[in-house]
Amino acid sequence: MKRYARTVRFDEVDIAGVVFFARYLNYGHEAMEDFFAGFEGGYAGLVKSRGVGFPAVNAEVTYTASLRLGDPFFIDTSVLHIGNTSCVFGYRIWRSGPDGTELDCARIRHTCVVCNLPAMTKLAIPSDIRAHLSAHLQAEAT
Amino acid sequence: MKRYARTVRFDEVDIAGVVFFARYLNYGHEAMEDFFAGFEGGYAGLVKSRGVGFPAVNAEVTYTASLRLGDPFFIDTSVLHIGNTSCVFGYRIWRSGPDGTELDCARIRHTCVVCNLPAMTKLAIPSDIRAHLSAHLQAEAT
Amino acid sequence: MKRYARTVRFDEVDIAGVVFFARYLNYGHEAMEDFFAGFEGGYAGLVKSRGVGFPAVNAEVTYTASLRLGDPFFIDTSVLHIGNTSCVFGYRIWRSGPDGTELDCARIRHTCVVCNLPAMTKLAIPSDIRAHLSAHLQAEAT
Amino acid sequence: MKRYARTVRFDEVDIAGVVFFARYLNYGHEAMEDFFAGFEGGYAGLVKSRGVGFPAVNAEVTYTASLRLGDPFFIDTSVLHIGNTSCVFGYRIWRSGPDGTELDCARIRHTCVVCNLPAMTKLAIPSDIRAHLSAHLQAEAT
Repeated sequence: MKRYARTVRFDEVDIAGVVFFARYLNYGHEAMEDFFAGFEGGYAGLVKSRGVGFPAVNAEVTYTASLRLGDPFFIDTSVLHIGNTSCVFGYRIWRSGPDGTELDCARIRHTCVVCNLPAMTKLAIPSDIRAHLSAHLQAEAT
Repeated sequence: MKRYARTVRFDEVDIAGVVFFARYLNYGHEAMEDFFAGFEGGYAGLVKSRGVGFPAVNAEVTYTASLRLGDPFFIDTSVLHIGNTSCVFGYRIWRSGPDGTELDCARIRHTCVVCNLPAMTKLAIPSDIRAHLSAHLQAEAT
Repeated sequence: MKRYARTVRFDEVDIAGVVFFARYLNYGHEAMEDFFAGFEGGYAGLVKSRGVGFPAVNAEVTYTASLRLGDPFFIDTSVLHIGNTSCVFGYRIWRSGPDGTELDCARIRHTCVVCNLPAMTKLAIPSDIRAHLSAHLQAEAT
Repeated sequence: MKRYARTVRFDEVDIAGVVFFARYLNYGHEAMEDFFAGFEGGYAGLVKSRGVGFPAVNAEVTYTASLRLGDPFFIDTSVLHIGNTSCVFGYRIWRSGPDGTELDCARIRHTCVVCNLPAMTKLAIPSDIRAHLSAHLQAEAT
């Protein structure tokens, strides 16, 4: 698991003062970019120098508590499955609850194929990426 | 089913020239707003005058074909389930395929609770809203 | 002048229920894309087939009245200046005022260079584009 | 001047791989939120607990170099003018140039009125806010 910290910004909340439901996928992707920060040039290096992309084939978000303007929150990224040319990222988005516990706000299950860009053809997961994914593999909560 | 037409705009595509995966949820919500266009003041009237909101408890997107800059596309909104204080919207996002067929790009299953705003307390679905949902109820594809 | 009609969507308003200031530039660009709708493939055709881009060198927005969730509004696009490799778009964003008059919400002055993509080198404005710009040239309000 | 550090994310670049021109205003606002981080509850505390808002009356961006996916960059926020019920923020957005110098990417001049929310009525700048603005007042580059 890799933890990423963030604060809810003004342009991320809706008229009800809470984060709009679509934005949780942006948050997940942001955490995924951070997940690859240790690679040369980071996630951008994967995309731009190595032409490796992770287009989504499925994404599911379960919302359990709201995030409001100014809330500090965390995204815990783990890897739920590794295939030959695909993988599943899991993001747990949480903030501190009233009693100091970790209050789950959303969980995302993000299934990607690994692709050669710009051709968008499937790619056997390169070994260094596979090693990094494996290091964060975690049994899926059931 | 209610059909909504759109074109992919410049600020909706990523470096690969395709619509970013999170934005499909924005598209779904946009179609949902259109779905309520016949109500007084439209969707905005529900939110602002009647204090009725539809916060998501779950959203799942299955991606099957990309949408690219300038692509005309359609969102077919239907209702997959109606509960006492919740409902499930289904969005089929598609464009014309090379051979004139309808090419599915994404399907979204969007589970909402119906709430009183701003208290965010559950609300038994008001009868006019229930009637509109019922008129578009459709058996879920399996 | 070319008029473009729109309604304020849920994901475009902030916690105060009004359109966030940055989004007016998205609105302007959206109207600019519509401005080129008559070209083959529309604005997307310019970008993707002809490799013509319009990167901004300056953009100024003057805000005079707010836009709120659900407001129908209009963007009137005109061309304020045409140079050799640059042009200035003007967007007037307005909605119906309480008394049926046109209530100005914002004015944008958007200065672009015309470029060859992806090289991003300046391009003498192609003649068909110049003709279209010229047809919408309008003396700048002072 | 207060410096804020950031990296360009995937969902912030366009098909040309550079940050979309509208997003610079989002960046400016993000830096402005950070500028008020020292206040109780930060910028969110101003908005939510004290009902103080900063709606824009004018925003001008001058673009001088692009920001690309993955680029680390900085936003230097200063205050260019302080009135009775208004102020002008200046944002210099820059990244490291090829030779280690500071390469200016954009400058923003952001004129706000200070308002009571939600009434949106002008507010004499509260003294603690005025003191913070004054501490970062800087002669405007000409």
